[in-house]
Amino acid sequence: MTRQLHFNLFLHDTGHHEASWRLPESDPYANLSLQAHQRLARIAEDAKFDSVFLADSPVLWSDPGRRPSGKLEPTLLLAALIGSTSRIGLIATASTSYNEPYNLARRFASLDHLSQGRAGWNIVTTAGDAAARNFGLDDQPLHRARYERADEFLEVSTKLWDSWADDAIVADKQAGVHARSSHVRSVDHHGEFFRVDGPLNVPRSPQAWPLLVQAGSSEDGKEFAAKWAEAVFTAQPTLAESQAFYADLKRRAAAAGRDPDHVVILPGIVPVIGDTSAEARELEAELERLIAPQYAVATLAYTLRVDPARLVLDEPLPADLPDEAEIEGAKSRRTLIVDWARRENLTVRQLIGKLGGGRGHRTFTGTPSEVADTIQEYFENGAADGFNIMPAVLPSGIEAFATKVVPILQERGLFRTDYEGTTLRQHYGLPRPSNVLDPIGVR
Amino acid sequence: MTRQLHFNLFLHDTGHHEASWRLPESDPYANLSLQAHQRLARIAEDAKFDSVFLADSPVLWSDPGRRPSGKLEPTLLLAALIGSTSRIGLIATASTSYNEPYNLARRFASLDHLSQGRAGWNIVTTAGDAAARNFGLDDQPLHRARYERADEFLEVSTKLWDSWADDAIVADKQAGVHARSSHVRSVDHHGEFFRVDGPLNVPRSPQAWPLLVQAGSSEDGKEFAAKWAEAVFTAQPTLAESQAFYADLKRRAAAAGRDPDHVVILPGIVPVIGDTSAEARELEAELERLIAPQYAVATLAYTLRVDPARLVLDEPLPADLPDEAEIEGAKSRRTLIVDWARRENLTVRQLIGKLGGGRGHRTFTGTPSEVADTIQEYFENGAADGFNIMPAVLPSGIEAFATKVVPILQERGLFRTDYEGTTLRQHYGLPRPSNVLDPIGVR
Repeated sequence: MTRQLHFNLFLHDTGHHEASWRLPESDPYANLSLQAHQRLARIAEDAKFDSVFLADSPVLWSDPGRRPSGKLEPTLLLAALIGSTSRIGLIATASTSYNEPYNLARRFASLDHLSQGRAGWNIVTTAGDAAARNFGLDDQPLHRARYERADEFLEVSTKLWDSWADDAIVADKQAGVHARSSHVRSVDHHGEFFRVDGPLNVPRSPQAWPLLVQAGSSEDGKEFAAKWAEAVFTAQPTLAESQAFYADLKRRAAAAGRDPDHVVILPGIVPVIGDTSAEARELEAELERLIAPQYAVATLAYTLRVDPARLVLDEPLPADLPDEAEIEGAKSRRTLIVDWARRENLTVRQLIGKLGGGRGHRTFTGTPSEVADTIQEYFENGAADGFNIMPAVLPSGIEAFATKVVPILQERGLFRTDYEGTTLRQHYGLPRPSNVLDPIGVR
Repeated sequence: MTRQLHFNLFLHDTGHHEASWRLPESDPYANLSLQAHQRLARIAEDAKFDSVFLADSPVLWSDPGRRPSGKLEPTLLLAALIGSTSRIGLIATASTSYNEPYNLARRFASLDHLSQGRAGWNIVTTAGDAAARNFGLDDQPLHRARYERADEFLEVSTKLWDSWADDAIVADKQAGVHARSSHVRSVDHHGEFFRVDGPLNVPRSPQAWPLLVQAGSSEDGKEFAAKWAEAVFTAQPTLAESQAFYADLKRRAAAAGRDPDHVVILPGIVPVIGDTSAEARELEAELERLIAPQYAVATLAYTLRVDPARLVLDEPLPADLPDEAEIEGAKSRRTLIVDWARRENLTVRQLIGKLGGGRGHRTFTGTPSEVADTIQEYFENGAADGFNIMPAVLPSGIEAFATKVVPILQERGLFRTDYEGTTLRQHYGLPRPSNVLDPIGVR
């Protein structure tokens, strides 16, 4: 069989464009609605997507005036979607900086049992002082320390997921033995950040571990992804940058002793689809008109760590921006944005327009066959194993993609016409993890 | 309208009797199955129960040989039940000792939005060193310190739930204003245990707060319940003890400045139902025969803090047991058990048999009308506002209760024949909390 594309739907209430909620068609309460999310997940499942995904941070992200800013907790929201879907993977973002491994490993093991093998974890370290101040700290931990904690967090979590051997449960009613105690092992982890004795109080799940997903693009982030991630989301605005990122991460994975095919790379793409080019451009222009600049300038100023007063709408970015090395936060996002603005010589207003859609991801405006051509070009030229689909407007954008772009790619033999496996890892063509605590008694 | 009973179904895979999984009818994997829980919740909803409930502790509770010991995380499991139910309340246990307020307050707010007002939180402080050792500690915090943390945890949580005013969201597409920023307030809590700046990233939910439930019966636990709890689960083996507990807690609530009718008291009852008395006693005897004594003795020894070797099956409990004051744990459970054994002059074997069913709760074996009579007796004699139903065997025990006991109580006018409200608080006849941060600008 020819190599196949993989698609993830990045769920985002009324769409990834910040003004999408202002369109007449949009439900401004969709962010709090189970029914709205059920509808999106079903569209993606009917189109045979590999997964749906929710981003997250334990903090109020933006000014609540700007757009729907309430965010339901992702593991709960995805659990609520289990009953109305049957095959599609469910990927929740959760922070290693502001959770305890026992609790979080248990939530993902629970999600995997309840969904019969459809759970994924997008691992984040959570940038920003505002989040830190919801968890007893004055400032965020340093970038490097966050990744060191994340690494130990994964070590503890994998041991907890493996604390029950696959064959621990015997359910022998006659003998009165439910599980073999010797096959349920404590983990006795005493590390720099965590002490966790275990075992987990959840048996090993259908996938053993949730699919491990990551999206950091800093040096630390890429090293972490090369070691742990099985799927990687990334923001790359051009084909060349995508190719460079793809080659670099596959090389790093190999250097870490892993099979590079077991790291699936999914650049984000913001498709704005119209039946004609003119129709697509019209939707894009309408969304740009609806952006409220006062909110957008404030966010851009925060990302770049400059005084908002220094960002003038019809002028380019100031020349003297702080270096990335001085910023303890989402490092790569800032670099992407500045490079983009300088390369295309954008004014602040133009930059805000682009960011409203893509936030550093590639916005592609065009007809269904133009979108399909771009996807195929990336896929066949070492830039992507699939895509993280981020429609500017929801649900209409995923409906258009599912009913107009997907059939073209299926006709070209590039995307499945039905699911072949039942678990999320099977959709992505990845093996089930072996048990880090096996064989029994050997540690 | 006459005063009405309230019923909660205490979910517990194959049933509350520890040997229930060994019955031919039982699915020994029910603890990990969404379908099994959906079935139980639907039976309870069809019978117009107020709520279903899951107990919890972040630790492997018992020897995995003894019975199904894997426990899915309750907030996730209940989220997964939202879609297959429409009215019944969903009460999850979660620990104030091993969670962060921002994360947990957010999970319950999310559950309340997703379920449109059906969320409840059974607040526990989590006894035991084994749990502590999953969270970086050598030993559990002292009993008093756990309750002091719990009290501050609730203070932070209620402020977070109220950080968005009810009228914050305006969703004004024309003006481009989604929510009024001035009606979304930081909480700036800097206390002994927590620093949380807020605001929560979830708007105020249909019920504002999850229904607050509590089950501690120690002095600290009862004071905490009098201050915070709207529903109280309790284990009382006799009518007289139930009456004393009921009067005491209502008095404490009044002393705390609350309306005693706003604290709904629900003793646990383990009904073992047969169409004839003989049939009921036969089921009870079969369950006792199926208890594996090696596991039960170990658990009893742990609860009483004695060497298991000192518990001899056909002798009474040793006379010299450690005092409650010396035990840092689930204080009241131990006292209940010892008092019960001494009062009824039980051998260890007999005590284990009783505990296999009730663990300190009242086991009632009889016909449907005998069970209904007992419930009515408690309800009309100052011992209960309703019951926490803990069937020895599931699903058959709740099916029997729903189809045979509930109709008798409905005929007597003591229990609803349909839901009148839509939220969990409305089922229990309780008011929606007012906002602790209102009016705007006054703190």
